[in-house]
Amino acid sequence: MHRGSGNPRIQYILANCQGFGVLSKSQNRHRALFHNFCFSIFVLSMRNLFVLSLALNVSLILRTMYEREQSHHWLSFETQKGQAVQKTRLALSSSSSSPAATTQVDTQDGGEKILNLARGDPTMFEKYWQQMGDKATVVIPGWQHISYFSDVTNICWFLEPKFAKEVVRVHKAVGNAVTEDRHIVVGTGSSQLYLAALFALSAHDLPEPVSVVSEAPFYSSYPSMTDCLKSGLYKWMGDARSFNKDGAYIELVTSPNNPDGHIRRSVVNKSEGILVHDLAYYWPQYTPISSPADHDLMLFTVSKSTGHAGMRIGWALVKDREIARRMTEFIELNTIGVSKDSQLRAAKILEVISDSSERAGSSEEGESFFEFSYHLMSERWKLLREAVEHSGSFSLPEFHPGFCTFLNRVSEPQPAFAWMKCERDIEDCESFLQGHKIFTRGGEHFGFGTEYVRISMLDRDDNFHLLVKRLSAIHI
Amino acid sequence: MHRGSGNPRIQYILANCQGFGVLSKSQNRHRALFHNFCFSIFVLSMRNLFVLSLALNVSLILRTMYEREQSHHWLSFETQKGQAVQKTRLALSSSSSSPAATTQVDTQDGGEKILNLARGDPTMFEKYWQQMGDKATVVIPGWQHISYFSDVTNICWFLEPKFAKEVVRVHKAVGNAVTEDRHIVVGTGSSQLYLAALFALSAHDLPEPVSVVSEAPFYSSYPSMTDCLKSGLYKWMGDARSFNKDGAYIELVTSPNNPDGHIRRSVVNKSEGILVHDLAYYWPQYTPISSPADHDLMLFTVSKSTGHAGMRIGWALVKDREIARRMTEFIELNTIGVSKDSQLRAAKILEVISDSSERAGSSEEGESFFEFSYHLMSERWKLLREAVEHSGSFSLPEFHPGFCTFLNRVSEPQPAFAWMKCERDIEDCESFLQGHKIFTRGGEHFGFGTEYVRISMLDRDDNFHLLVKRLSAIHI
Repeated sequence: MHRGSGNPRIQYILANCQGFGVLSKSQNRHRALFHNFCFSIFVLSMRNLFVLSLALNVSLILRTMYEREQSHHWLSFETQKGQAVQKTRLALSSSSSSPAATTQVDTQDGGEKILNLARGDPTMFEKYWQQMGDKATVVIPGWQHISYFSDVTNICWFLEPKFAKEVVRVHKAVGNAVTEDRHIVVGTGSSQLYLAALFALSAHDLPEPVSVVSEAPFYSSYPSMTDCLKSGLYKWMGDARSFNKDGAYIELVTSPNNPDGHIRRSVVNKSEGILVHDLAYYWPQYTPISSPADHDLMLFTVSKSTGHAGMRIGWALVKDREIARRMTEFIELNTIGVSKDSQLRAAKILEVISDSSERAGSSEEGESFFEFSYHLMSERWKLLREAVEHSGSFSLPEFHPGFCTFLNRVSEPQPAFAWMKCERDIEDCESFLQGHKIFTRGGEHFGFGTEYVRISMLDRDDNFHLLVKRLSAIHI
Repeated sequence: MHRGSGNPRIQYILANCQGFGVLSKSQNRHRALFHNFCFSIFVLSMRNLFVLSLALNVSLILRTMYEREQSHHWLSFETQKGQAVQKTRLALSSSSSSPAATTQVDTQDGGEKILNLARGDPTMFEKYWQQMGDKATVVIPGWQHISYFSDVTNICWFLEPKFAKEVVRVHKAVGNAVTEDRHIVVGTGSSQLYLAALFALSAHDLPEPVSVVSEAPFYSSYPSMTDCLKSGLYKWMGDARSFNKDGAYIELVTSPNNPDGHIRRSVVNKSEGILVHDLAYYWPQYTPISSPADHDLMLFTVSKSTGHAGMRIGWALVKDREIARRMTEFIELNTIGVSKDSQLRAAKILEVISDSSERAGSSEEGESFFEFSYHLMSERWKLLREAVEHSGSFSLPEFHPGFCTFLNRVSEPQPAFAWMKCERDIEDCESFLQGHKIFTRGGEHFGFGTEYVRISMLDRDDNFHLLVKRLSAIHI
């Protein structure tokens, strides 16, 4: 029985309910949902008092038991290792309007908030969009964008022309990718485009699946996304550094890399390789833009560039027409296109970003999205490095500054994730940090050592500041 | 070389350009895009006059050549059989903002418009939503719905609570499905939910893939969607009627059925079967609602219920918690959730429908979406049957009226597609109709005979009226 997926929700609730119902003063209005939820536990528990009492007893009996739950999910709030977090599961069956009202709630000893930075939810940028006000608002009447089709003259027939236009414009404004003579394929996030690329690049008539590799540490979802359907077309083969099989292969190059933030190049040096460049983080707030990327197949996403993960919009820039056509075919078979509403909203968001970037040289410099987000990231990395130095228990990667053609000055790499190493013989960094109520993703998920963890740098301010406070206080 | 996918676009352009650039007077404002496109051919052709002239010459030389292009795509505008449609492909390379500006244009003899009813683009309902005006409009500020998460207390953590609420409400208002004690899983259209169901229902530790079957005629995309990745988890095994393999299997029950509109039940009578009910068409405009459907796993979509195909929003009602969890896991691995923007828009649209349904008994009866769409479908089926009778060359399925609990009267089944048979020894109905400039999807795509075709009944008024006019005039 695979129970790992229950935990993320439970831990998130805990993180927001602070010790079973005592609400944090610093929680902002976006957590109203969870406030309401926490409150409803008590309302409902009046009806379920007996169940609750029974469950708490069971919880106490089970107290000394050790539960290790392994989760392979991209979004998981990470496994619990060597730590006894007490759980009480309340099945709050409800006859209300929601049929999915079965809710899980965990409790734990102590009132300290669990800080979950295992995932890369880019809520940090919300502030900027609040400042933008109506400029970034979309209005969609009920009768618009009804058809499956967006542009039947395009290979990617479900690509909204307005979105395509703004993609080209933002790359031009930022200078981070060549768009001339490229086909744009829109996807439901870059995840779908990654799968579409595998489908498009695989030979469908070969007896063996094509090998898929990436240099470790690699994006932790690559293995499970590649192998979840046991496809006969492609197969995950792990670290590109140790790949020595003959024949066709696909190498994924994530640059800057998730998790470690380094600029990457292909490492397998064979003739039959095809490269996919995941450039989700090749934006000025994360790394100096040295020149426009000019690869055969490049993936981008609004999640990390603008912070709109909930839109599920990504795009591929594809040199070869036939590859673009096959990627489109995959998305046709997978989801018959991509939400028009989100494409239109993404177009508006990118438009605001390009507008703000083009204004950047003028007197209104403060409004530029990339300047805003660069300074925010810069401040965070400074605080993180200070905390790590103060602690003396960890280390962080070092980066070389470089000239950023967009910012028109030397800038620092400041990745979306901190790839942190536990020092002083701490072998399992993830578990160690869990002991300090900091949830991260352990190095082994990235094909690397357990002495490493990946920490999201993109959460809201209060969580980030709690992180540096806690790290700073750890002394071994 | 797989070239089929080029044709759909070409034929669609033709259908809208009417004889290489002579615009139809009846084209409505939603075709402005294609008007502009057709016009731009001439603007650009001034620059490309030589290329155009050359291409037209090539076209004339190739005139007598016969090209059969087989397309397996869901959205394809169908294969060309026994018909020499002349093609001129103009590669309009552009240095404009769109990198995907390589455009294909076909020409043909004569100026008669090609009528493409091979796909089920539900643009017919657009009129209703225009009438609704601002009631059905959504407004989404730039800072809202940024996170990956919608409701971390729900198994389906990317399900927007407002959408879930409106799904329950519309089923309650219509009485077409039981929602009590069900988990809702939202998907990027019901296609993604179909794949999620296959993933969730397959045993991942078996040496052989589970068999997937459906009674013929079945939805033409099932085979390609199931087998496109050569999954080791599941495999398409065709017509459920001839299925006699031992072991686990998944049977897809589409009811009312696409393509033939009949109410369906499971036909494989074995112990190890799992059923998936695709109820995309179980709505009052298409069939009498006899009772709330009460199956283990039911799929619905806004595309066919409300007409909003461009949203790519579907939902599953799932009895078993673990199945719902695994479907969610699939969508996590596939697209890391589902567009929040479209979920919110779908919630608004469903809200307007439920509002209008609840008002239906009052004096404002004319405003009810299902009354409106029932009458529209009713009128169309009447016209189609008259045309078929007048022609004497075709036949249509007969249906029994039934009591509809929603409309509170006896109503007629009037499917979203006409499953039409060519009579009088016409063996290849699709090719025959293509000869009359009517593009449909041939019976063989549905695991059935070539004397059948499927014709969309959901296109805009002008196209539908052209269909009945043309069918009516065919006499053999």
